[in-house]
Amino acid sequence: MKRTIGVLVENRFGVLARVAGLFSARGYNIDSLCVGETEDPAVSRMTVVVHGDEAVLEQIIKQLNKLVDTIDVFDLTRESFVERELVIVKVAAGSKQRSEVIEIATIFRAKVVDVTTDSMILEVTGAEEKVEAFIDMMRGFGIKELVRTGEIAIARSPRENPP
Amino acid sequence: MKRTIGVLVENRFGVLARVAGLFSARGYNIDSLCVGETEDPAVSRMTVVVHGDEAVLEQIIKQLNKLVDTIDVFDLTRESFVERELVIVKVAAGSKQRSEVIEIATIFRAKVVDVTTDSMILEVTGAEEKVEAFIDMMRGFGIKELVRTGEIAIARSPRENPP
Repeated sequence: MKRTIGVLVENRFGVLARVAGLFSARGYNIDSLCVGETEDPAVSRMTVVVHGDEAVLEQIIKQLNKLVDTIDVFDLTRESFVERELVIVKVAAGSKQRSEVIEIATIFRAKVVDVTTDSMILEVTGAEEKVEAFIDMMRGFGIKELVRTGEIAIARSPRENPP
Repeated sequence: MKRTIGVLVENRFGVLARVAGLFSARGYNIDSLCVGETEDPAVSRMTVVVHGDEAVLEQIIKQLNKLVDTIDVFDLTRESFVERELVIVKVAAGSKQRSEVIEIATIFRAKVVDVTTDSMILEVTGAEEKVEAFIDMMRGFGIKELVRTGEIAIARSPRENPP
Protein backbone atom coordinates (compact mmCIF):
# COMPACT_ATOMS: atom_id res chain seq x y z
CA MET A 1 0.00 0.00 0.00
CA LYS A 2 1.20 3.48 -0.85
CA ARG A 3 1.73 5.71 2.18
CA THR A 4 2.27 9.46 2.14
CA ILE A 5 4.03 10.87 5.18
CA GLY A 6 4.52 14.55 5.99
CA VAL A 7 7.37 15.55 8.30
CA LEU A 8 7.92 19.03 9.71
CA VAL A 9 11.55 19.48 10.77
CA GLU A 10 13.85 22.20 12.01
CA ASN A 11 15.75 23.56 9.01
CA ARG A 12 19.15 22.44 10.33
CA PHE A 13 22.03 20.90 8.50
CA GLY A 14 22.08 17.11 8.48
CA VAL A 15 18.34 16.66 9.12
CA LEU A 16 17.70 15.14 5.71
CA ALA A 17 20.55 12.65 6.18
CA ARG A 18 19.13 11.63 9.58
CA VAL A 19 15.60 11.19 8.24
CA ALA A 20 16.75 9.28 5.15
CA GLY A 21 19.00 7.21 7.42
CA LEU A 22 16.03 6.06 9.51
CA PHE A 23 14.38 4.59 6.43
CA SER A 24 17.51 2.99 5.00
CA ALA A 25 18.58 1.52 8.37
CA ARG A 26 15.42 -0.60 8.21
CA GLY A 27 15.83 -1.48 4.55
CA TYR A 28 12.89 0.69 3.58
CA ASN A 29 13.01 2.11 0.07
CA ILE A 30 11.66 5.62 -0.48
CA ASP A 31 9.62 6.00 -3.70
CA SER A 32 9.88 9.75 -3.68
CA LEU A 33 10.86 12.53 -1.30
CA CYS A 34 10.58 16.29 -1.45
CA VAL A 35 11.94 18.75 1.03
CA GLY A 36 11.49 22.50 0.92
CA GLU A 37 11.01 25.50 3.18
CA THR A 38 7.67 26.39 4.74
CA GLU A 39 6.25 29.81 5.59
CA ASP A 40 8.70 29.81 8.50
CA PRO A 41 12.25 29.68 7.05
CA ALA A 42 13.41 27.88 10.21
CA VAL A 43 11.08 24.98 9.40
CA SER A 44 11.27 22.59 6.45
CA ARG A 45 8.57 20.22 5.34
CA MET A 46 9.23 16.82 3.80
CA THR A 47 6.78 14.66 1.94
CA VAL A 48 7.86 11.03 1.76
CA VAL A 49 6.06 8.42 -0.34
CA VAL A 50 6.76 4.78 0.47
CA HIS A 51 5.44 1.29 -0.22
CA GLY A 52 6.13 -1.52 2.19
CA ASP A 53 5.53 -3.32 5.42
CA GLU A 54 3.04 -1.44 7.63
CA ALA A 55 4.53 -2.58 10.95
CA VAL A 56 8.02 -1.45 9.95
CA LEU A 57 6.64 1.90 8.80
CA GLU A 58 4.96 2.41 12.18
CA GLN A 59 8.37 1.84 13.80
CA ILE A 60 9.96 4.38 11.48
CA ILE A 61 7.26 6.97 12.25
CA LYS A 62 7.89 6.46 15.98
CA GLN A 63 11.60 6.97 15.46
CA LEU A 64 10.97 10.03 13.30
CA ASN A 65 8.97 11.50 16.17
CA LYS A 66 11.94 10.97 18.48
CA LEU A 67 14.46 12.88 16.35
CA VAL A 68 15.36 16.19 18.02
CA ASP A 69 14.86 17.97 14.70
CA THR A 70 11.30 16.72 14.26
CA ILE A 71 8.43 19.10 14.96
CA ASP A 72 5.58 16.93 13.68
CA VAL A 73 4.98 13.75 11.69
CA PHE A 74 1.63 13.06 10.07
CA ASP A 75 0.38 10.14 8.08
CA LEU A 76 -1.64 11.83 5.35
CA THR A 77 -2.92 8.49 4.12
CA ARG A 78 -5.25 8.48 7.13
CA GLU A 79 -6.84 11.82 6.25
CA SER A 80 -8.54 13.30 3.22
CA PHE A 81 -5.74 15.05 1.40
CA VAL A 82 -4.77 16.77 -1.83
CA GLU A 83 -1.73 15.25 -3.54
CA ARG A 84 0.11 16.82 -6.42
CA GLU A 85 3.28 16.17 -8.35
CA LEU A 86 5.15 18.23 -10.92
CA VAL A 87 6.80 16.58 -13.90
CA ILE A 88 8.98 18.13 -16.59
CA VAL A 89 9.49 16.06 -19.71
CA LYS A 90 11.56 16.65 -22.81
CA VAL A 91 10.17 14.88 -25.87
CA ALA A 92 11.66 14.29 -29.31
CA ALA A 93 9.12 16.30 -31.27
CA GLY A 94 10.05 18.27 -34.38
CA SER A 95 7.83 20.44 -36.55
CA LYS A 96 5.75 17.44 -37.74
CA GLN A 97 4.80 16.28 -34.23
CA ARG A 98 4.50 19.69 -32.58
CA SER A 99 0.79 20.29 -33.08
CA GLU A 100 -0.07 16.79 -31.88
CA VAL A 101 2.01 17.29 -28.73
CA ILE A 102 0.28 20.64 -28.11
CA GLU A 103 -3.11 18.97 -28.57
CA ILE A 104 -2.34 16.34 -25.93
CA ALA A 105 -0.82 18.99 -23.64
CA THR A 106 -4.06 20.98 -23.82
CA ILE A 107 -6.13 17.97 -22.77
CA PHE A 108 -3.88 17.40 -19.75
CA ARG A 109 -3.56 21.13 -19.03
CA ALA A 110 0.17 20.71 -19.47
CA LYS A 111 2.27 23.73 -20.48
CA VAL A 112 4.92 23.93 -23.17
CA VAL A 113 7.87 25.64 -21.49
CA ASP A 114 10.53 25.36 -24.19
CA VAL A 115 10.82 24.35 -27.82
CA THR A 116 13.74 23.67 -30.17
CA THR A 117 13.77 22.39 -33.77
CA ASP A 118 13.73 18.77 -32.61
CA SER A 119 12.43 18.82 -29.03
CA MET A 120 9.81 20.25 -26.71
CA ILE A 121 9.88 20.63 -22.91
CA LEU A 122 6.52 20.33 -21.16
CA GLU A 123 5.42 20.60 -17.55
CA VAL A 124 2.37 18.96 -16.02
CA THR A 125 1.01 18.81 -12.49
CA GLY A 126 -1.56 16.50 -10.97
CA ALA A 127 -2.09 13.42 -8.89
CA GLU A 128 -0.04 10.34 -9.74
CA GLU A 129 -2.55 8.75 -12.15
CA LYS A 130 -2.92 11.87 -14.28
CA VAL A 131 0.82 12.42 -14.43
CA GLU A 132 1.40 8.76 -15.36
CA ALA A 133 -1.24 8.98 -18.11
CA PHE A 134 0.45 12.08 -19.53
CA ILE A 135 3.88 10.41 -19.49
CA ASP A 136 2.37 7.39 -21.28
CA MET A 137 1.07 9.65 -24.04
CA MET A 138 4.45 11.36 -24.40
CA ARG A 139 6.23 8.01 -24.66
CA GLY A 140 4.98 7.67 -28.25
CA PHE A 141 7.06 10.66 -29.32
CA GLY A 142 10.19 9.50 -27.51
CA ILE A 143 11.08 10.81 -24.08
CA LYS A 144 14.54 12.34 -24.02
CA GLU A 145 14.58 13.38 -20.38
CA LEU A 146 12.14 13.23 -17.48
CA VAL A 147 12.25 14.82 -14.01
CA ARG A 148 9.60 14.34 -11.32
CA THR A 149 9.39 16.20 -8.06
CA GLY A 150 7.65 13.33 -6.30
CA GLU A 151 4.40 14.03 -4.51
CA ILE A 152 3.59 16.78 -2.07
CA ALA A 153 0.39 16.59 -0.07
CA ILE A 154 -1.78 18.73 2.15
CA ALA A 155 -4.75 17.70 4.32
CA ARG A 156 -8.15 19.09 3.33
CA SER A 157 -9.15 19.61 6.96
CA PRO A 158 -7.27 22.12 9.12
CA ARG A 159 -4.29 20.65 10.94
CA GLU A 160 -3.72 21.06 14.66
CA ASN A 161 -0.13 22.19 14.34
CA PRO A 162 0.47 24.43 11.38
CA PRO A 163 2.49 25.75 9.46
CA MET B 1 25.33 31.71 -5.13
CA LYS B 2 22.49 29.33 -5.75
CA ARG B 3 23.52 26.06 -7.39
CA THR B 4 21.22 23.47 -8.92
CA ILE B 5 22.65 19.97 -9.17
CA GLY B 6 21.05 17.01 -10.95
CA VAL B 7 22.04 13.51 -9.87
CA LEU B 8 21.04 10.31 -11.66
CA VAL B 9 21.28 7.33 -9.32
CA GLU B 10 20.42 3.65 -9.27
CA ASN B 11 17.04 3.27 -7.57
CA ARG B 12 18.44 1.24 -4.66
CA PHE B 13 17.64 1.41 -1.01
CA GLY B 14 19.86 3.71 1.03
CA VAL B 15 20.98 5.87 -1.91
CA LEU B 16 19.23 8.97 -0.62
CA ALA B 17 20.81 8.56 2.82
CA ARG B 18 24.26 8.22 1.22
CA VAL B 19 23.82 11.30 -0.97
CA ALA B 20 22.36 13.40 1.87
CA GLY B 21 25.19 12.13 4.09
CA LEU B 22 27.83 13.49 1.69
CA PHE B 23 26.40 16.98 2.06
CA SER B 24 25.91 16.86 5.82
CA ALA B 25 29.37 15.35 6.46
CA ARG B 26 30.79 18.60 5.10
CA GLY B 27 28.35 20.80 6.95
CA TYR B 28 26.58 21.75 3.76
CA ASN B 29 22.92 22.66 4.14
CA ILE B 30 20.53 21.62 1.38
CA ASP B 31 17.92 24.28 0.49
CA SER B 32 15.68 21.81 -1.28
CA LEU B 33 15.84 18.30 -2.64
CA CYS B 34 13.51 16.26 -4.80
CA VAL B 35 13.90 12.65 -5.74
CA GLY B 36 11.62 10.69 -8.03
CA GLU B 37 11.68 7.95 -10.65
CA THR B 38 12.71 8.57 -14.25
CA GLU B 39 11.50 6.88 -17.44
CA ASP B 40 13.58 3.90 -16.34
CA PRO B 41 12.17 2.64 -13.00
CA ALA B 42 15.66 1.38 -12.06
CA VAL B 43 16.95 4.97 -12.17
CA SER B 44 15.99 7.86 -9.89
CA ARG B 45 16.77 11.50 -10.48
CA MET B 46 17.51 13.98 -7.72
CA THR B 47 17.55 17.73 -7.99
CA VAL B 48 19.46 19.40 -5.19
CA VAL B 49 19.51 23.16 -4.63
CA VAL B 50 22.24 24.54 -2.39
CA HIS B 51 23.90 27.80 -1.41
CA GLY B 52 27.42 27.83 -0.09
CA ASP B 53 31.13 27.60 -0.58
CA GLU B 54 32.01 26.78 -4.20
CA ALA B 55 35.20 24.85 -3.41
CA VAL B 56 33.40 22.61 -0.92
CA LEU B 57 30.62 21.99 -3.43
CA GLU B 58 33.19 20.91 -6.04
CA GLN B 59 34.49 18.38 -3.50
CA ILE B 60 30.96 17.10 -2.87
CA ILE B 61 30.31 16.73 -6.61
CA LYS B 62 33.53 14.72 -6.94
CA GLN B 63 32.45 12.46 -4.09
CA LEU B 64 28.96 12.10 -5.57
CA ASN B 65 30.58 10.89 -8.78
CA LYS B 66 32.47 8.24 -6.81
CA LEU B 67 29.38 6.69 -5.18
CA VAL B 68 28.66 3.26 -6.68
CA ASP B 69 24.99 4.21 -7.03
CA THR B 70 25.73 7.32 -9.09
CA ILE B 71 25.13 7.22 -12.84
CA ASP B 72 25.68 10.89 -13.59
CA VAL B 73 26.03 14.24 -11.84
CA PHE B 74 25.46 17.51 -13.68
CA ASP B 75 25.74 21.07 -12.55
CA LEU B 76 22.73 22.67 -14.23
CA THR B 77 23.85 26.13 -13.15
CA ARG B 78 26.50 25.91 -15.89
CA GLU B 79 23.95 25.29 -18.65
CA SER B 80 20.82 26.97 -19.90
CA PHE B 81 18.04 25.23 -18.04
CA VAL B 82 14.35 25.28 -17.21
CA GLU B 83 13.61 25.30 -13.47
CA ARG B 84 10.20 24.76 -11.96
CA GLU B 85 8.77 24.29 -8.52
CA LEU B 86 5.31 23.26 -7.35
CA VAL B 87 3.75 24.84 -4.27
CA ILE B 88 0.48 24.00 -2.54
CA VAL B 89 -0.82 26.60 -0.13
CA LYS B 90 -3.85 26.64 2.14
CA VAL B 91 -5.10 30.14 2.87
CA ALA B 92 -7.64 31.42 5.39
CA ALA B 93 -10.15 32.74 2.89
CA GLY B 94 -13.89 32.61 3.51
CA SER B 95 -16.69 33.75 1.23
CA LYS B 96 -15.67 37.43 1.50
CA GLN B 97 -12.10 36.86 0.34
CA ARG B 98 -12.78 34.11 -2.18
CA SER B 99 -13.18 36.22 -5.31
CA GLU B 100 -10.05 38.24 -4.52
CA VAL B 101 -8.03 35.03 -4.07
CA ILE B 102 -9.37 33.69 -7.39
CA GLU B 103 -8.43 36.98 -9.09
CA ILE B 104 -4.83 36.74 -7.87
CA ALA B 105 -4.73 33.02 -8.72
CA THR B 106 -5.75 33.84 -12.31
CA ILE B 107 -2.93 36.35 -12.67
CA PHE B 108 -0.38 33.79 -11.49
CA ARG B 109 -2.06 30.94 -13.41
CA ALA B 110 -2.52 29.19 -10.09
CA LYS B 111 -5.32 26.63 -9.68
CA VAL B 112 -7.84 26.36 -6.88
CA VAL B 113 -7.79 22.68 -5.91
CA ASP B 114 -10.05 22.67 -2.84
CA VAL B 115 -12.36 25.02 -1.00
CA THR B 116 -14.12 24.93 2.38
CA THR B 117 -16.23 27.58 4.14
CA ASP B 118 -13.13 29.20 5.67
CA SER B 119 -10.18 28.07 3.55
CA MET B 120 -8.93 27.52 0.02
CA ILE B 121 -6.14 25.26 -1.27
CA LEU B 122 -4.24 26.54 -4.31
CA GLU B 123 -1.43 25.14 -6.42
CA VAL B 124 1.05 27.15 -8.44
CA THR B 125 4.09 26.20 -10.49
CA GLY B 126 6.92 28.33 -11.76
CA ALA B 127 10.47 29.44 -11.21
CA GLU B 128 11.44 30.54 -7.71
CA GLU B 129 10.69 34.26 -8.16
CA LYS B 130 7.16 33.69 -9.45
CA VAL B 131 6.37 31.21 -6.71
CA GLU B 132 7.75 33.58 -4.05
CA ALA B 133 5.68 36.46 -5.45
CA PHE B 134 2.53 34.34 -5.31
CA ILE B 135 3.24 33.27 -1.71
CA ASP B 136 3.75 36.96 -0.81
CA MET B 137 0.33 37.80 -2.20
CA MET B 138 -1.29 34.93 -0.28
CA ARG B 139 0.33 36.06 2.98
CA GLY B 140 -2.20 38.89 3.22
CA PHE B 141 -5.05 36.39 3.62
CA GLY B 142 -3.22 34.28 6.19
CA ILE B 143 -1.33 31.15 5.21
CA LYS B 144 -2.52 28.11 7.15
CA GLU B 145 -0.23 25.57 5.55
CA LEU B 146 2.39 25.58 2.82
CA VAL B 147 4.20 22.74 1.04
CA ARG B 148 6.86 23.21 -1.61
CA THR B 149 8.40 20.49 -3.75
CA GLY B 150 11.67 22.34 -4.15
CA GLU B 151 12.98 22.92 -7.64
CA ILE B 152 13.37 20.44 -10.45
CA ALA B 153 15.38 21.40 -13.50
CA ILE B 154 16.08 20.22 -17.01
CA ALA B 155 18.70 21.47 -19.49
CA ARG B 156 17.41 23.17 -22.64
CA SER B 157 20.09 21.54 -24.79
CA PRO B 158 20.16 17.76 -25.21
CA ARG B 159 22.25 15.94 -22.64
CA GLU B 160 24.94 13.42 -23.56
CA ASN B 161 23.69 10.75 -21.16
CA PRO B 162 19.95 10.58 -20.96
CA PRO B 163 17.41 9.43 -19.54
